[in-house]
Amino acid sequence: MFLAKIHVTLKPTVNDPQGLTIARALGRLDFDSIESVRAGKYFEVKINGDDETSVGSDVKTMCEKLLANLVIETYTYELEAI
Amino acid sequence: MFLAKIHVTLKPTVNDPQGLTIARALGRLDFDSIESVRAGKYFEVKINGDDETSVGSDVKTMCEKLLANLVIETYTYELEAI
Repeated sequence: MFLAKIHVTLKPTVNDPQGLTIARALGRLDFDSIESVRAGKYFEVKINGDDETSVGSDVKTMCEKLLANLVIETYTYELEAI
Repeated sequence: MFLAKIHVTLKPTVNDPQGLTIARALGRLDFDSIESVRAGKYFEVKINGDDETSVGSDVKTMCEKLLANLVIETYTYELEAI
């Protein structure tokens, strides 16, 4: 079995209102040294299977079909045998 | 300057409707080998500062005050000098 750790983040050029709001909120909480905040999503998916290559290609398809909106987001993943 | 990569995830015992919904949706997309999905949040925070210890303690306070709800969530972070 594999654990896929998937990060989905907005592309750097895409405006991130959630991140901006968090940055402002941190400013109000007296964190003065914040330069920027980008918010993203994180998924941990447990997948049955023994072949890392085929599981990896499944994860890629999952991200492209469901988890990430490739117009505005990018994804990265790591696989860990468990 | 440091880049803090912060993961906020639900505690393992907490029900995760978003993850369950994603798992079901993946099933409908013919991914038959999904064992479970847990959904979480991911933040990239750029913080001015030279002292890793003090930046780290700031990140901890940020997570505890704003980013994570410690009743149901846990957080982890990594610092990377940039």
